Amino acid sequence: MLTKQASPAEIRQQCRLQNHTGNTSGLAAGYVQANMVILPKTDAADFLQFCQLNPKPCPLVAMSSQPGDTGIISAAVDLDIRTDLPSYRIFRHGELVAEQTDIRGLWQDDLVTFLLGCSFSFEEALIADGLEIRNITEQVNVPMYRTSIRCQPAGKFSGPMVVSMRPMTPANAIRAIQICSRFPQVHGAPIHFGDPSAIGISDINQPDFGDAVSIKPGEVPVFWACGVTPQLAIAEAKPDFCITHTPGCMLVTDIPNSKLALF
Amino acid sequence: MLTKQASPAEIRQQCRLQNHTGNTSGLAAGYVQANMVILPKTDAADFLQFCQLNPKPCPLVAMSSQPGDTGIISAAVDLDIRTDLPSYRIFRHGELVAEQTDIRGLWQDDLVTFLLGCSFSFEEALIADGLEIRNITEQVNVPMYRTSIRCQPAGKFSGPMVVSMRPMTPANAIRAIQICSRFPQVHGAPIHFGDPSAIGISDINQPDFGDAVSIKPGEVPVFWACGVTPQLAIAEAKPDFCITHTPGCMLVTDIPNSKLALF
Repeated sequence: MLTKQASPAEIRQQCRLQNHTGNTSGLAAGYVQANMVILPKTDAADFLQFCQLNPKPCPLVAMSSQPGDTGIISAAVDLDIRTDLPSYRIFRHGELVAEQTDIRGLWQDDLVTFLLGCSFSFEEALIADGLEIRNITEQVNVPMYRTSIRCQPAGKFSGPMVVSMRPMTPANAIRAIQICSRFPQVHGAPIHFGDPSAIGISDINQPDFGDAVSIKPGEVPVFWACGVTPQLAIAEAKPDFCITHTPGCMLVTDIPNSKLALF
Repeated sequence: MLTKQASPAEIRQQCRLQNHTGNTSGLAAGYVQANMVILPKTDAADFLQFCQLNPKPCPLVAMSSQPGDTGIISAAVDLDIRTDLPSYRIFRHGELVAEQTDIRGLWQDDLVTFLLGCSFSFEEALIADGLEIRNITEQVNVPMYRTSIRCQPAGKFSGPMVVSMRPMTPANAIRAIQICSRFPQVHGAPIHFGDPSAIGISDINQPDFGDAVSIKPGEVPVFWACGVTPQLAIAEAKPDFCITHTPGCMLVTDIPNSKLALF
């Protein structure tokens, strides 16, 4: 059994042994957890440019040095990207074809791995400052919405920006903007607050992904760019082959959250 | 005639010669302009604590080292605080009794000078980033409002926080929060945005000080703590004797705005 005190290396080891195959939320407090995207080299250059052009929804924390590499030393010692996540999703031509706990049998020498920052890091920083995160209080998934904001396209990758929403009082939203601004590699500052329709959200109580949360009197919805954005771009691009993490089942890295702080 | 290119020292010299007796807005671009408060030593300790307890409306940039000092070397070389502002207001027992361009005849050995940051500095930083400041576009004074937020009292000094308001889109407000957070000595980040009634403002179109500005569709009012706050606290405290700058007629210091940036 993994505890909250388990180190990132222990967690990866338990994933590798297939003893842990589920959600990583709350594990290895203080360490960066990453969204993962694996693409063949033929699509990787475009995807890298997509991340570069859209750093708020697609903040690149690390990537493999060479196609075929199964380790990323800047993210984790002894990493085997093929085994060290709890669960993987396999896509062919944009279709989800399998969900499995080990991808060694699918590995190819042309595969490039991308690690993208995730909101767990900034939620931890907000909670440490005493702010309430409604989706955590209400024990549901954060509500996420497609917006009318278009990402900058790169090759075959394009699509709408997806945002996550956390309700806050204006004073807490100002504090959250300050804190999150220090962490551009985990989505950074919010991109909007207030009127949902200004970014193309027609009903705040009907998220496109995740669960609705209550918005109390005096609070405004605050919107962050969300890591589901690259997943939608990949779904629309339909690359021949793609592997991602299973939602919520992230790569736990050795990078302390504080190392991502600008200052 | 003073030009925009005039140095802070030239401006102070022209004030000393009584050639410049008016507004300092737009002069000496890039340098901190300061609100000034002069109080007898008997009241100065309480006022200093009031500033310490309420740093957002009363951000202390510098103060005289010893009672009676007429210079503040950390703010300006060769400063004579008795002559180097364009215009002064004299208060006795809380009543405005005179407005004059030189206070040498009123100087006492027990007077302590406080210099407080002003919004000119952060407005400059916002404009440099491409943001529009509505009161500047519309060529009026910034609208200011008494709020229901009480300052932390210190001795005889207490009162409501006064705020200034600048309308912005949410995206621009987020950027403004980031920029202003770097400058705590010139009021720092906004303290509120959105619903005026949440901070006790009943009619956004009826400011208590300054002029109303237009709020366009898609914009929200953004509120900053304002340097009128200590003026109200002094008016309510009714110290036997007090000298301030005349509104808009600030001390132009030698401190570059960028020197006040936290990072």
